[in-house]
Amino acid sequence: MRFFITAIILCSQLFAATAAPAAAGAPPRNVILIIGDGMDDQQISIARNYLRGASGKLLLDELPLRAAVGVLTIEDKQDGAPVYVADSANTATSIATGVTTSRGRIATSAGSDLDLPTIAELAAARGLRTGIVTTASVTDATPAAFASHVSMRLCQAPDRMVDINYRGIPLGGCPADLKANGGRGSIAEQLAESSLHILLGGGRKYFTPSAEGASYSVLELASQQGFQLVVDSAELAASDPDGRVLGLFSPGTMPVRLQGENGRAAEPPQPSLLNRLHHYLGSVSMPAPMRCVTNPDAASVPSLKQMTDAALASLSRDNQRGFLLLVESASIDKQAHERKACGSIGELQQLEEALASALDFASGHPGTLVLVTADHSHAAQMVPVESLYAAYPIPIYTPGQLVLVATPEGGLMAINYATNNFSHEEHTGANVPLFGNVEALGRVPPYLQQRDIFTILSDYLGL
Amino acid sequence: MRFFITAIILCSQLFAATAAPAAAGAPPRNVILIIGDGMDDQQISIARNYLRGASGKLLLDELPLRAAVGVLTIEDKQDGAPVYVADSANTATSIATGVTTSRGRIATSAGSDLDLPTIAELAAARGLRTGIVTTASVTDATPAAFASHVSMRLCQAPDRMVDINYRGIPLGGCPADLKANGGRGSIAEQLAESSLHILLGGGRKYFTPSAEGASYSVLELASQQGFQLVVDSAELAASDPDGRVLGLFSPGTMPVRLQGENGRAAEPPQPSLLNRLHHYLGSVSMPAPMRCVTNPDAASVPSLKQMTDAALASLSRDNQRGFLLLVESASIDKQAHERKACGSIGELQQLEEALASALDFASGHPGTLVLVTADHSHAAQMVPVESLYAAYPIPIYTPGQLVLVATPEGGLMAINYATNNFSHEEHTGANVPLFGNVEALGRVPPYLQQRDIFTILSDYLGL
Repeated sequence: MRFFITAIILCSQLFAATAAPAAAGAPPRNVILIIGDGMDDQQISIARNYLRGASGKLLLDELPLRAAVGVLTIEDKQDGAPVYVADSANTATSIATGVTTSRGRIATSAGSDLDLPTIAELAAARGLRTGIVTTASVTDATPAAFASHVSMRLCQAPDRMVDINYRGIPLGGCPADLKANGGRGSIAEQLAESSLHILLGGGRKYFTPSAEGASYSVLELASQQGFQLVVDSAELAASDPDGRVLGLFSPGTMPVRLQGENGRAAEPPQPSLLNRLHHYLGSVSMPAPMRCVTNPDAASVPSLKQMTDAALASLSRDNQRGFLLLVESASIDKQAHERKACGSIGELQQLEEALASALDFASGHPGTLVLVTADHSHAAQMVPVESLYAAYPIPIYTPGQLVLVATPEGGLMAINYATNNFSHEEHTGANVPLFGNVEALGRVPPYLQQRDIFTILSDYLGL
Repeated sequence: MRFFITAIILCSQLFAATAAPAAAGAPPRNVILIIGDGMDDQQISIARNYLRGASGKLLLDELPLRAAVGVLTIEDKQDGAPVYVADSANTATSIATGVTTSRGRIATSAGSDLDLPTIAELAAARGLRTGIVTTASVTDATPAAFASHVSMRLCQAPDRMVDINYRGIPLGGCPADLKANGGRGSIAEQLAESSLHILLGGGRKYFTPSAEGASYSVLELASQQGFQLVVDSAELAASDPDGRVLGLFSPGTMPVRLQGENGRAAEPPQPSLLNRLHHYLGSVSMPAPMRCVTNPDAASVPSLKQMTDAALASLSRDNQRGFLLLVESASIDKQAHERKACGSIGELQQLEEALASALDFASGHPGTLVLVTADHSHAAQMVPVESLYAAYPIPIYTPGQLVLVATPEGGLMAINYATNNFSHEEHTGANVPLFGNVEALGRVPPYLQQRDIFTILSDYLGL
C-alpha cells in the first residue's frame, strides 16, 4: 500500500514534470547537476556502511529515481574503437557536450580535435546563468569540460601548454590550443574569459601565471572580465551578491574532510619470511584497523555545501531565466587513487550535504531538476575480513593494498585497492549510478549513456 | 517526447499493477525471480561490452525498472554485528525468508539456528505451484535456501552432514540437522521431500547416496515423493506434463556455455628478472589476448532458457492459483571465483535468454511479476589496457591476475581478479542491481534491502 501511494504521488509529479517547457509567467527552469567523481556502487556502499550503517540509507538512496549510466570512451581518432575504461576528462566531455571522446580530452573531439559546445555555454547563450562548484582545482578535468576546450587535461595554465613534464617525465602538451596558434589558451584563461556567473573551488596556482602574451596574470584577466575574486569563506560571504564571483580557496585540490588515523592510507599485507618463500607457507599480517578522523586542514576552506549554497543564492537571485549549476565532489576519486578510504567516505559525505542543499532549493523552486551521477567507477572494493576460504590452513590475503576501517556501528570493513602496482590506482569500467529528484521521473530511462545526460539537460532547459 | 509517452504508458501500467490482488475470475498471480549469482555492475558491464558492444544494451537494460539492493550479513549470533561481504547462502536466505542471517546459513537464523519459512514454502502452502531452475547443483546455496533448512551450506547430501572435509581439511558439518537428531536431514533429502513442483539443474551426485537411515537413495526418496526423474533434454521433453519433475542434468555444476580460448583463465603478469629485483625496473609481460569460444561440454545439458521454458510450461499448465519460479544463473559467480571472464559472460548471456522467456511468458499472462537481481558483488573488475600513468617510464601492471578479452566489436577488455592470492577469488561488498518488468513499477523503491524482496513477493502473491 505504501508503494501504491508512492505511485500516485510519483505519477502526478511525473506528469507535472514532463509537461512541455513552462509557459510565460511560469518559474524559470533550473538544473543542478552533481557529479561524484569516481562514485561507483562500491564507493556508495562503503560510505553507506560508514556514515549510516549497513542497514541505513544515504540521502542518495532516498531519491525517487535511480538509473544506471554506461560510460563510453573511444580511441583518439575519428570513429575510434571503444576503450573500456575512462578518465574524468572524456566522461565529463560526454556529459557536457553529448559527444563521446578519448581519454584526456576537454570538450574536444577525438582525432579531429574540434571544440565541442558545452551545455554551460549553450545555456549562457540563451540567457541562463551558469555556475560551477568543485572541491578540485576549477581547472581540473570535470569542471574544465563544461567551460573550456583543450586537447589535453593537463593544459591547466598558460605555463603548462607545451612540453609539460613531471620530474623530468614528458607528459605532452596542447600547442594547438595556444592563442598564438589560433587556440583559446589554457583552461584557466578560458575559465577567466568564460560566461560563467560563479566559479568556486581550488586551483589558485593555475591563475597566478601571466596570461599568454600578456603582462598580467590570469587572475587579473578574470578580474578584467568582471569576476570578483575571493579566497576564503569570509570573502565569499562578503562578495557583491549581484556580481560574478571567482572563488579560489586553495592552491590546488581543496583539503578533504576525513582521513585515516595518523594519516594512514591502505597498506600492503606483510608476509612472514616463510610466506615470502611460498605463499602457502608461514603467515601474513594484515594492516591494523583504523577509524576515520577529521582532517584539520578542511577547516581552512569552505565545505562543498557552503560553496553550493553560495552558488545557488548567486544563480537564483533576481533570475527570471533559470540556471545551470554543476557541483562536483572531486576527491572521492582523488582519495581512491591514493588508496585513502576515509578520504573518499568524507567526500561522499560532502556530496550528500550538497545534495541536501540542492533538494531544499528544488523544493522551494518548482522546475528545478536535480541529477546526481558519477563519471566512472574506481579501484576500491570491499573484500571479506575473513576469507570465504578461511578454513584452509594457508595464509589467504589480498594482493594490492588494504584498509581496515572500524565503522561507528561496530563492524570492520576491509577495502582493497588492487588495480596496479603504481603510487596511484586506476579507474575501472563498470556502469555508474544516476539519481534524480521528482523532476527526473519520466525524463531518465533506467539505463542510458553519459551523452544522453546532455540531451536530457538540454531538453529540460529548452536549449 | 519519447520519455513523455513512456511516462504515460508506464503510469497506466503502474496503476494497473498496483491494484489490490486480483478479484475472483482474474488471472492468477505469478512470480518469476531470476538471480544472477555474483552479477554486479562490473559483470553486467563486461557482458554488455562483449555481447552487445559498449554502445549497446542488454535485455536487462531495456527493463522499465532498475533499482539497487543493499546486501546485509551479520555475525553468527543473535543481533550479530554487520559483516560487510556476503556469501550466496546468507543472501539467498534474506531473499527467500526476509531475515538477515550469517554466511553459510541456508534458511536458518544466525546464532539461534531456527528454521525460517521460505517464500516457496509459504506459496506452496497457499496452493501455488513452485519451481526452481539453476545451472548449479540444485543443492547449492541459492536454490537450497528457497526449499531447505540447514546450518551450513556444504550439508548437501546425507553423506556430507558431519565432519565434512576437503583433502583432509575439516570444513564443519550440520549434526543438529540430522534426522536422527530431530533435524530435517541434508539439503538433497529436504528437496526430495519438498513441495516443489519442478526442480531442474545439476547435482545428481548429491542424490545418489542412501537417504539417512534408509536402504534407498535420495533419488529413490524423491521418486517415492512423486517426482519423475529426468537426466537429459530428451527425458525432460518426454516427461508427464502434469507431473512433478526432478531434473538432474550433471553430477555437479552444469557445464558453462563459454570459455577462454584453450581453456585459459586469468593469468598473472610476468615480470622480467630486473623487475623482480624492483618493481620500477625492467619490464612486465601481460597475458596474451583471448577470444571467448563455445565450451563443447555445454551441448550435453539443456540451457538455462530450455529449463526455464520447461518450468514455465509445467508451472502454468491448468493452474488457477499461480506460481513462484526461481531461476538462477549460478556460474556468473563460479566462473568469477575461477577467474574465467568468458565463463561469466556466457552465463550472463544464459540469464538474458531466460529473461527473454520470462518476459514472453509475462506478456501473455497478465499478473506475472518478473524480477532480476544478484545476490552479491564479485571480484572481476575492468581495468585500463593502457594505464592512466602510462607516460611514466616504469612497468605499471595489475597485482592479482588478468584476462585480456578481444571483443567482437574490435576492442580489448582487461579484467583483473585481485581479491586474494588463493585458487578462488572472494566476493565483494557493493550493493547490487535489481530489474523488473512493468509489474514491478510502484512496488519496488529505488533502493531496498534484500529482505524487502521477500516482502514484495509475498505481497504480490497475497501470501
